[in-house]
Amino acid sequence: MTAQKRDARAADASLVRGDPPAITGAGMTAFATADDRSLLDLLLVAAERALDDADRDPADVDSVHVGNMAAEAFNRRSGLANALVGGLGMTGVTARRVENTSASGASAFQSAVAAVASGRSERALAVGGEKMSAADTATATEIISRITHDREYEQGVTLPSFGGLAAAAYLRETDADRRDLARVAVKNHVNAYANEYAQFNKRIDVADVLASPSVASPLRLYDCCPTSNGAAAVVVEAGPAATDDPVTVAACESATGTHAVADRTDPLEIDSVRIAGERAYDAAGFGADAVDLACIHDAFTILEWLEMEELGLAPEGRAWERTRDGLTDLDGELPVNPGGGLKARGHPLGATGISQVIELVWQLRGDLPDERAVDGASRGLAVNVAGFGNNAVCTLLEGDA
Amino acid sequence: MTAQKRDARAADASLVRGDPPAITGAGMTAFATADDRSLLDLLLVAAERALDDADRDPADVDSVHVGNMAAEAFNRRSGLANALVGGLGMTGVTARRVENTSASGASAFQSAVAAVASGRSERALAVGGEKMSAADTATATEIISRITHDREYEQGVTLPSFGGLAAAAYLRETDADRRDLARVAVKNHVNAYANEYAQFNKRIDVADVLASPSVASPLRLYDCCPTSNGAAAVVVEAGPAATDDPVTVAACESATGTHAVADRTDPLEIDSVRIAGERAYDAAGFGADAVDLACIHDAFTILEWLEMEELGLAPEGRAWERTRDGLTDLDGELPVNPGGGLKARGHPLGATGISQVIELVWQLRGDLPDERAVDGASRGLAVNVAGFGNNAVCTLLEGDA
Repeated sequence: MTAQKRDARAADASLVRGDPPAITGAGMTAFATADDRSLLDLLLVAAERALDDADRDPADVDSVHVGNMAAEAFNRRSGLANALVGGLGMTGVTARRVENTSASGASAFQSAVAAVASGRSERALAVGGEKMSAADTATATEIISRITHDREYEQGVTLPSFGGLAAAAYLRETDADRRDLARVAVKNHVNAYANEYAQFNKRIDVADVLASPSVASPLRLYDCCPTSNGAAAVVVEAGPAATDDPVTVAACESATGTHAVADRTDPLEIDSVRIAGERAYDAAGFGADAVDLACIHDAFTILEWLEMEELGLAPEGRAWERTRDGLTDLDGELPVNPGGGLKARGHPLGATGISQVIELVWQLRGDLPDERAVDGASRGLAVNVAGFGNNAVCTLLEGDA
Repeated sequence: MTAQKRDARAADASLVRGDPPAITGAGMTAFATADDRSLLDLLLVAAERALDDADRDPADVDSVHVGNMAAEAFNRRSGLANALVGGLGMTGVTARRVENTSASGASAFQSAVAAVASGRSERALAVGGEKMSAADTATATEIISRITHDREYEQGVTLPSFGGLAAAAYLRETDADRRDLARVAVKNHVNAYANEYAQFNKRIDVADVLASPSVASPLRLYDCCPTSNGAAAVVVEAGPAATDDPVTVAACESATGTHAVADRTDPLEIDSVRIAGERAYDAAGFGADAVDLACIHDAFTILEWLEMEELGLAPEGRAWERTRDGLTDLDGELPVNPGGGLKARGHPLGATGISQVIELVWQLRGDLPDERAVDGASRGLAVNVAGFGNNAVCTLLEGDA
């Protein structure tokens, strides 16, 4: 980052005082359909990997921010932050768990970034995780379905049905066809295939998507992210340049949207994503044009398009063209979900937002093998979404390129 | 607060830049054993009362911090912050739920205070609540018991048994007798009797405590807080003096302690409370001697003594004398739990920390009727504790007296 840019940002009191926080360490478990380890063990593994990567000991950290959606229901336990701190042998730190349903990971990261940016914390550890396989199907379905508006839940409108309704409307209102939607999943599976941390390491094609069971018409099984187990962690430190190869947090902003989908003026608009994105661009001092790669919350294929459009990464009603033209591929103009996205890397709820940040860190640092690296990326965006868009967190990271 | 004190505090970058945040509104539901309203409705009622008290509309608030321990298990729902924001008709705010088991309320308050103090939020709403009666006994017992160390949980050491072990050790090591411990409960019931928001409105005497069923020797039923339903909320705004009669947040600090009780060098020490207290006194620029009243986390009678001693509100091993001598009574030298404490006001986990803050606000503003007012109080302390002390949050408030 140039000194000029840094000065410009420091003048914006709405974001960060002085140098922006840096991410000095990142680590995660592989995401998986099943895992013998407990949720706490997954969090510990991710935390230790992030600390190792930052070359820090637990004693160097003074605040811990745990992202998790539903351990009380899925794993019959509460107090994860305190158990994690105990497991790491830390005492005397500020610790809490942050929950924002499927955006719990990014909200925990945001909490860590805010603690460092405000000077309350010198080094913060953000750890997100979920062990969904431990829950019976009825519990998982009930808990996940009830993150929407009570009225919609009571009428049986689940998250996949919102996805199906939105997909149907998008296909009706634009020139996209059903095969274009399938191409989102195909691309994300290609990306995951090269990612050793991904849940799915299986290439699929458009015909596979179209032949998979229907979930909520027109969405099929391969349009939907899986349930997953996994954890992810990053170390956030006060700037400047805490390491040789820092990635700085240019912005991390959030916004709630209209809670009930039925109350939205347009079912294809996701206010939370748009507002969080606008705030993040304002705070970072650069816009969508400067973004080199993006991790988008593709819980359903259709969401990749809707969020790209809200974030200005594609014109309204035109994201599908970018998919069809290969512009969102790993070697495209703006690679989207280079690690496989929720669709194929997996979606262990509380881990997802932090795994997106980690993907950006690895890409911006140039840590990844050629077959899965985005060339010459210096600015990345991640968006993590709660419910069907009732809350969103948008993060902008900047490498030292 | 004098200008001199304010300057001294502003110089301490560890706390707050410029004027400390002010609490401009407070409101809660009555705490109750049973309640027909949903958890979300309880949160909404408390939030609306706090906003009314602050003379603010929901649209005036830009961040929402919800404290709740276990809605996923007790109420089969996640995403409370987003549902609350939706229910209040707000969009475009930063919202999250903060969980720190039985200290979730104070952690949510701390999150709100930090947001305002750092300038990220101009007006924050902290709302805590829990509806415990919705959970079956097996679920409630499992979730609450598992907030201790896994090893201790697996050996069947529940929170009441930690309380019993600590009480037995304290009675052995000091000159306190069993009747002194009962006096803590008697006093807190007296205070709750005058509090219209308290769960228990029943005076008890020492004989009642000693005749109540044994829970974990020497603790009896009347030494233990109940399970409760309820919610509490405060509005936190950037200083200075947002209202005519402001209460300012002199400090809100937290610390984790040694997670497993078995790993502590002395079972009567609660490191988290001591460290959080030291940090709070440092940040506020005044010490225990300046505190005029205190809300202490008396989940078990013995904890009132242990925490008073860790916070310097009584010499080590001598808190019992203060109870016996009436110094912690409403008209005593240092009233403790003037609203009835967890013991008698009730303990709806996520609400408790905020209800302590509200009690201090009401006392410092002089809002309460004579029969339950602490005369001439200008500085109050609240401590909210997670588990059996694996985390604690200490808040110091200052009135305009």
